[in-house]
Amino acid sequence: MAEHNVSVANTLVVLLGEKKYATVRDILVTMNPADIAWIFDEVDQERLPILFRLLPKELAAETFVEMEPEAQELLIHSFSDNELREVLDELYVDDAVDIVEEMPANVVRRILAQADPQMRKDINMILRYPENSAGSIMTTEYVSLRPHMTVEEAILRIRRTGVDKETIYTCYVTRNRTLLGLVTVKDLLLAQDDEMSIEEIMETNIISVGTHTDQEEVAQMFSKYDFLAFPVVDAEYRMVGIVTFDDAMDVMEDEATEDMELMSGMLPSEKPYLRSTIFELFKHRILWLMLLMVSSTFTGMIITGFEDALKAQVVLTAFIPMLMGTGGNSGSQSSVTVIRSLSIGELEFSDLLQVIWIEIRTAVLCGIALAAACFIKLMLIDNLLLGNDEVTVLVAAVICVTMALTVLAAKVIGAVLPMVAKKLGMDPAVMASPFITTIVDALSLLVYFGVANVLLL
Amino acid sequence: MAEHNVSVANTLVVLLGEKKYATVRDILVTMNPADIAWIFDEVDQERLPILFRLLPKELAAETFVEMEPEAQELLIHSFSDNELREVLDELYVDDAVDIVEEMPANVVRRILAQADPQMRKDINMILRYPENSAGSIMTTEYVSLRPHMTVEEAILRIRRTGVDKETIYTCYVTRNRTLLGLVTVKDLLLAQDDEMSIEEIMETNIISVGTHTDQEEVAQMFSKYDFLAFPVVDAEYRMVGIVTFDDAMDVMEDEATEDMELMSGMLPSEKPYLRSTIFELFKHRILWLMLLMVSSTFTGMIITGFEDALKAQVVLTAFIPMLMGTGGNSGSQSSVTVIRSLSIGELEFSDLLQVIWIEIRTAVLCGIALAAACFIKLMLIDNLLLGNDEVTVLVAAVICVTMALTVLAAKVIGAVLPMVAKKLGMDPAVMASPFITTIVDALSLLVYFGVANVLLL
Repeated sequence: MAEHNVSVANTLVVLLGEKKYATVRDILVTMNPADIAWIFDEVDQERLPILFRLLPKELAAETFVEMEPEAQELLIHSFSDNELREVLDELYVDDAVDIVEEMPANVVRRILAQADPQMRKDINMILRYPENSAGSIMTTEYVSLRPHMTVEEAILRIRRTGVDKETIYTCYVTRNRTLLGLVTVKDLLLAQDDEMSIEEIMETNIISVGTHTDQEEVAQMFSKYDFLAFPVVDAEYRMVGIVTFDDAMDVMEDEATEDMELMSGMLPSEKPYLRSTIFELFKHRILWLMLLMVSSTFTGMIITGFEDALKAQVVLTAFIPMLMGTGGNSGSQSSVTVIRSLSIGELEFSDLLQVIWIEIRTAVLCGIALAAACFIKLMLIDNLLLGNDEVTVLVAAVICVTMALTVLAAKVIGAVLPMVAKKLGMDPAVMASPFITTIVDALSLLVYFGVANVLLL
Repeated sequence: MAEHNVSVANTLVVLLGEKKYATVRDILVTMNPADIAWIFDEVDQERLPILFRLLPKELAAETFVEMEPEAQELLIHSFSDNELREVLDELYVDDAVDIVEEMPANVVRRILAQADPQMRKDINMILRYPENSAGSIMTTEYVSLRPHMTVEEAILRIRRTGVDKETIYTCYVTRNRTLLGLVTVKDLLLAQDDEMSIEEIMETNIISVGTHTDQEEVAQMFSKYDFLAFPVVDAEYRMVGIVTFDDAMDVMEDEATEDMELMSGMLPSEKPYLRSTIFELFKHRILWLMLLMVSSTFTGMIITGFEDALKAQVVLTAFIPMLMGTGGNSGSQSSVTVIRSLSIGELEFSDLLQVIWIEIRTAVLCGIALAAACFIKLMLIDNLLLGNDEVTVLVAAVICVTMALTVLAAKVIGAVLPMVAKKLGMDPAVMASPFITTIVDALSLLVYFGVANVLLL
C-alpha cells in the first residue's frame, strides 16, 4: 500500500515536470483524499500549491483536511483570500476547528476572516469548550427535522440540505432547538407509509452526551452502543451538535496512545513519533527519568543503611536485581490490568474491595509458584551447579520469603494506586510501571533486609 | 449511568416478584439493548428466562447479542427449539458467529441445527477463516445492487431487503458476485435524477480488504478513511462480506488492550478482568514472571563475578538500583513509542535507520542531562548533605558515565528490538518493558563494573 503510493508520487512529480497537468489531474481524481494527502505530504513543498490547485473543489477540501498541519499552513499562505474561502466553504466545522487549533495566530485570523459568518460563529463556539470535551470534538452540521413533518417531507429535506451535513443517516427531531427524538434514514426508507409523521416513527428514548462530557467517555459510549453519531446537548437539553463515529475512533486511538505513553513514563505527545523533533522527544521523556533517578535516592539510602549487613553477607547483593525486578513486574502487571479496565469502563472505584481480594489471591498463587521455583533454582543452579557455597538453605529461604511478600505487596499496590488516582481525578495511567516500580523497589529492599535480619543475623 | 442502571435492575426485580409483567415490559421496551443486557447480567440467573421472554422479538435478539457468554448459554439451555430459532432469525451472521465461538460444542450443534440453511452455511464459512482475519469478523448481510438498476430501483430494493442488512448505507454493486463499485444511500438520495443508472453514479475506485487481511490492518484502514464499512473480497475479487465500523472499534480496543498486556509482561486475555477466574489471571501472569526471574540469574552472576570489587567499594552497590532503573525506564520509553507507532501504522521496518538516528540523538540529550543532574545530586546530597565520604568525585564520575552509556544503549535497543520483532513476524509488543528491562539490567551492570574497573581500580 505505502510502497504503491510512493511510486504514484514519483509518477506525478515526473508528469508535473513535463507540465502534463491534465494527466496528473486524471490520476488524482480517481484517488481517495486520505491517499492524495499522503502523497502530497511526500512531495516537495514548492510543488504543493500547483498540485493542490489541480484538484476539483470538493476533493481539494477533503484532501486538505487529511494533510499534515505544516503542509496546510504552507498552502494557506499560498492561497488568495478567494481560494481560502472556497476551501473553507467545503469544510465541515469540526475539521475547520481541528485546523484552526494547529495554526499560528496570524493564520487563524485569516481563516476566521474568510469563513462565512455562520461557520465563524460555530468555530468560535466549539473553541470555547474545554479541551477533550464532547463540545470540542463535535460538529454543528447535522440534519434537523420537525416532529410534524411527514416521512416524504423529511426525505425531501434531507435531499435538499444533506450535501453539507457530516452525516445524513441519523437525523434529529427538534422543536425550538430542544431535542425531541431521532430518526434514521433506514427508518425513513423502511417506513410503511410516506404520509406517516416523523413524530410517529421517531425514537424518543435518546442517548445524548453533554457539551462537557469527557471525550473518552463519549468514545466508550460509541463502542457500547454501536451508533453512528450521538447528539450533543447543552445544560437546557438544547441540541448544539453531533459527535460522529470517526471522531470517536480518533479519540480511542489517541487515548490508548496517551495511556501507553503515561504507563511507560512519558508525557503524552500530540505529534506522531517521526514528526517530532529531538528536543520534543527529549522534553517528553526527561521529566520522569529525572524524577525516578532522584526518587531512587531512597533505594540507595536503604542499601547504604544496611551496608554492614551486606559486607557480612555480600551474597545478598547478587539477588537484589532479581527481587526488585520480580516485584516491579508483578506490580506493573496488576496496575496495567486495572488501568486498562478503568479506561474501557469495565471497572469503577466501587469495585475496589473486589479488586484487592482478586489481587491478593492471584498474588498468593504467583508468590508461592515463584518462591518455589526460585528455591529450586537457587539450590540446584547457584549452589550445586555453580558451586556458590554462600547460597545456603537459609539464604535461599530469605530470598524466597522476600520474593513472595514482595509479589503480594506489589500486586496490591499496583492495583490500588490507579483506582485511587482515578477517584482523585488524576489519570490512572500515571500510576503504572515507573511509579509503581520505584515504590516496589524500595519496599522489596526493606522486606529483604528485614527478613535477612530475622533469619540470618 | 451505571448507578442508574443498578436501581432500574432493583425496580425490575421487585416488579417481577409482584408478577407485574406488563409494567416490566413497558420499562424494558424504552431501553437500549446494551443497557438491558447490562441489567440482565446483574439479575439472578433464575429470573433471566422470565425477563428475557418479556422482550419483543427483535429487542430480545439485540439484547441477547450484548449479553455475557455465560448468560447466553444459560438462556439457550432454557429455550425451546422454536424460541432458539426465533432469536437466531433476528441475528446478524457476525453476531451469531461471535456467540458460536464462545459456546461449548453441544450448544453449537443445537445452534447450527436451528439456524436456517443460509445462516448455517455463512456461519460455517466465517468460522473457517483464520482467527483475527477480516473474514472472521465480517458479516455476509449487505445490500447488493446491479449496475443496470436505476436509482429508483435501487432505493426500492433497499426498502425491500434492507431490514435484514447490517448496514444499508453503503451498497455494493456486483455482477456474478464480482465487486464492480459502491454506492452510498447519500449518493442515491442526492442523485439529480431518479432514472440515472447505478453504473453512472457508482464509485469504482473501491478500497477493499481481503478475507485473510489481518483485523488490525482493517481497523487502521477505518481510522484512515473514515468509512462506515469495507467490502471483503476473496482472491478472485468476488465479494464475500463486509466489515463495519463497530467491528473495527472492537478490534481497535482489543488490540490496544492486548498490546498493553504484552507490554507489561502478561499473556493477552480474552476475558474482562472482573470476569476472569483467579487461576486464569495467575496463568496469564506467571509465565513472564518466571522467565524474568530465571533470566535475572544473569544479573546475579554478573554481580557475583564482581564480588571482590564490590567488597572493596561497597558504596557502588547502593547505586545499582538507580542505574538499572534509569536504564530500564529509558529503554521502555523508546520501545513503547516504537511499538505504538508500528501498531497504528505510523512506522515501518524501512524506517529503521531513521529511528536509530532519532534515538541516538534523544539518548545523548537525555544521557547528558541525567548524568549532569546525577553528578550534582551525588556531590551535594550524598557527599555533602548526607556526609557519605565514600561518594568521591571519582565514584560519582563512574556512576554518571555509566548512566549516560546505559541510557544510550537502552534507548537504541528499546527502539530496534520491536522493529526487528515485527520484521520477523512476531508481535512487537512482546519487546516492551519486561524484556527490554532484563537485557538493559544486565548491560548496565556490565558497563558499571567495566567503567569502575577502569576509573577506580
